[in-house]
Amino acid sequence: MSFDSSQLLKELRDRLPADTLLTDPEALAAHARDAAPFSTPGVPAAVALPRTAAQVEEVMRTAYTYGIPVVPQGARTGLAGAANAVDGCVVLSTIRMDQIGTVDPVNRLVRCEPGVITKRLNDAAAEHGLAYPPDPASWETCTIGGNIATGAGGICCVKYGVTADYVLGLDVVLPDGRRMRTGRDTAKGVAGYDLTRLFVGSEGTLGVIVGATLALRPARPTPLALLAQFPSLAAAGHAVAAITASGHLPSAVELLDRATSQAVAEYGHALLRPDSAATLIVESDAPDPAPDLAAMKALCEGAGADQVVAASTAEESQKIIEARRMVSPALGAFAAALSGQPTAFIEDVAVPPSELPKFVGTIEDIARCHRLRIFTLGHAGDGNLHPTVLFDESDPDEVHRARTAYDDIMAAGLALGGTTTGEHGIGTLKREWLGRELDPVSLEVHRGIKRLFDPRQLLNPGKVVEA
Amino acid sequence: MSFDSSQLLKELRDRLPADTLLTDPEALAAHARDAAPFSTPGVPAAVALPRTAAQVEEVMRTAYTYGIPVVPQGARTGLAGAANAVDGCVVLSTIRMDQIGTVDPVNRLVRCEPGVITKRLNDAAAEHGLAYPPDPASWETCTIGGNIATGAGGICCVKYGVTADYVLGLDVVLPDGRRMRTGRDTAKGVAGYDLTRLFVGSEGTLGVIVGATLALRPARPTPLALLAQFPSLAAAGHAVAAITASGHLPSAVELLDRATSQAVAEYGHALLRPDSAATLIVESDAPDPAPDLAAMKALCEGAGADQVVAASTAEESQKIIEARRMVSPALGAFAAALSGQPTAFIEDVAVPPSELPKFVGTIEDIARCHRLRIFTLGHAGDGNLHPTVLFDESDPDEVHRARTAYDDIMAAGLALGGTTTGEHGIGTLKREWLGRELDPVSLEVHRGIKRLFDPRQLLNPGKVVEA
Repeated sequence: MSFDSSQLLKELRDRLPADTLLTDPEALAAHARDAAPFSTPGVPAAVALPRTAAQVEEVMRTAYTYGIPVVPQGARTGLAGAANAVDGCVVLSTIRMDQIGTVDPVNRLVRCEPGVITKRLNDAAAEHGLAYPPDPASWETCTIGGNIATGAGGICCVKYGVTADYVLGLDVVLPDGRRMRTGRDTAKGVAGYDLTRLFVGSEGTLGVIVGATLALRPARPTPLALLAQFPSLAAAGHAVAAITASGHLPSAVELLDRATSQAVAEYGHALLRPDSAATLIVESDAPDPAPDLAAMKALCEGAGADQVVAASTAEESQKIIEARRMVSPALGAFAAALSGQPTAFIEDVAVPPSELPKFVGTIEDIARCHRLRIFTLGHAGDGNLHPTVLFDESDPDEVHRARTAYDDIMAAGLALGGTTTGEHGIGTLKREWLGRELDPVSLEVHRGIKRLFDPRQLLNPGKVVEA
Repeated sequence: MSFDSSQLLKELRDRLPADTLLTDPEALAAHARDAAPFSTPGVPAAVALPRTAAQVEEVMRTAYTYGIPVVPQGARTGLAGAANAVDGCVVLSTIRMDQIGTVDPVNRLVRCEPGVITKRLNDAAAEHGLAYPPDPASWETCTIGGNIATGAGGICCVKYGVTADYVLGLDVVLPDGRRMRTGRDTAKGVAGYDLTRLFVGSEGTLGVIVGATLALRPARPTPLALLAQFPSLAAAGHAVAAITASGHLPSAVELLDRATSQAVAEYGHALLRPDSAATLIVESDAPDPAPDLAAMKALCEGAGADQVVAASTAEESQKIIEARRMVSPALGAFAAALSGQPTAFIEDVAVPPSELPKFVGTIEDIARCHRLRIFTLGHAGDGNLHPTVLFDESDPDEVHRARTAYDDIMAAGLALGGTTTGEHGIGTLKREWLGRELDPVSLEVHRGIKRLFDPRQLLNPGKVVEA
């Protein structure tokens, strides 16, 4: 598909401040894609960087008039290709719309623009003794708009819920440039259909988020963490099940499989043994975390952990949490030592937590079968795992095996009653899988909703679902 | 509008078990309406009481073929008219679909059918040390299907969230009889659009819920309550604001205005003084509730409460909570002593909690201005109030004044940044108000969604929005 955008660009130049529209090749290249693997983005015709909702309306209305596709972008940290450009499109980045309204501690909410960095929002809330809990891995660089568009998750979601749970209302610009408001500024409200949640996680395919009202919570108490190492995956799974079934509400339950435990141990974390079949990092931020942690330590030991270290100070906790943070650099170091062009992609399947041991075991089988290195870590408490597949991009056979393993992992997740994406989204990467996860009627309804909001298929075409 | 349903009924009799289709006048009358005031239901042609999802499909498919409207019903405890029959319709009650699946403590979820009574579900969860928190006033008689369809709230929502927050997935039969599944059995999941939440609170206008996967939580610790009486509304408002802003998470924050406090005092509650301007009942179910309650007691006193009683035992708590439970019988006794045909309707406006004192004051002004008795109570912690207007149905002028007051209350709620319905829904009662609450673009999108799911306008016509 190709579009003649010259007339559009002329009009947008007339209507927008000069620095709002970029067409130089560097800018186009810089805004071509997000962080998804296995995807070939298109070349945009222009990058629009509006500062106001009115400017977003202008871009949308004008692009609609000329039939030019628009691809919304935040910080491009997404892992599913939802922010990838299509050829000839206008990339609409909301990164400059970064105002935070007054934090309201009585109503526990804040309004903000989509380009606000998640960490900045949390810092603003913290000044009032409040927190915005969702903590995706990229929280220091990703934007609230992107978090909302992808329905981002994170580590503490096991206790505090995901981005969707904090969005009370949205200002949205529709594909034809009309602006609408969804939701409300009140904690409760059931007037009409829940359009707020329809936009959350719709990956920029139904409208462009230009403002949000977000719920806040009281600041979290300082947590304490434990690190438990297990002789088998099954034992680690039993520990997670025992913690959940006995009514604990830990603020993190992170699992590192054998390969990941080994990589982090070899990277130099003093507490990790390289021969662990599985490692759990469990955190409690209960008002009095020590007894809560002690009880969970006992449950880990009862499930067969052969070593459990429970922190009694914030410093000891930091040391334990560092094992989780070390995963990314440890895998980076591991990859750097390999030959060829080592590349990683991160999977995002969620299964019912009871199926975790079986699922991790299946992933280990898949790795063996396809002669690949797969490092599985993830949010065990809510069954959301991120198997990371390392492969050599210069080796076509290994690339093929990696893609096959990626498919096998999703098929295994679905077979265990899971979903192909717990928190990263469908984007371009998993479109085919969406059709396998949803039943045919649901898929048809998805297409109908896309048609309803975007009848000309101009907003983020090719993502999630095609009408 | 009128429909010839004779052929439909003949077909349904052929296809459904004999006791599944009722057409006797008593059954039709008994299923004509829910508990909404100011509404004139139609006369149904038949009442279908299917036991299985397949029978629901059969009813929907056949009614669709003959162009006969279908009105879904649960326990008919709704307060907005969403379950009211329309002339010549088939009422489809899911009350007999009352199976509860296995409670799963590791994945903290349960599947159930729509006709399950909310209390029964909670009892089933309690056997496994779990709870299904949403507690609408009618929780001992209302159904899960109705709770989901209306997005029901309750008292403990201030801490634990509303029905919507517990619905992971749904089985839904669409107006044309096709069945689809939404959502998932996992805690997290972002595959596709959030159709689950689109059905939650859609009041039976988009599809008929035939099954649900619900999230459960650990059982709540035994709570302790306090009762605080204030010399002014403003003081009570300050107390609510102080409790919220200082980071407490009470499991109930209930407000009784002057008229309600007086009615409950006169009904015989020993703790309530008849001259209180406002009463707050605050409950903590923190693991160690006593210090939490003591801190909130101090905040009430600091805000100007002239009497605060804090329970130190479960029995004392019960006595305090009884004041809240006594509101309904107290108002009943009050009404019974009036002349004429005393009738009550319950409003359901939610405002930002910071606006509570102003809102309650405005309601008192409205009562004076229209010479009416209005008793305001409600969920102060999330700003959701239920002003109850008492009026004499045999007095046309008073009926007129009551309707005007009802409109004035909603206008006041909207003017304070609130919503016209916090938890009861739009139904037939507030359709006009939905158009005032939503912006024109949102209203047009609502119509589009209704058209998408129900192009022939056969499912629960005239409720929420018309396409």
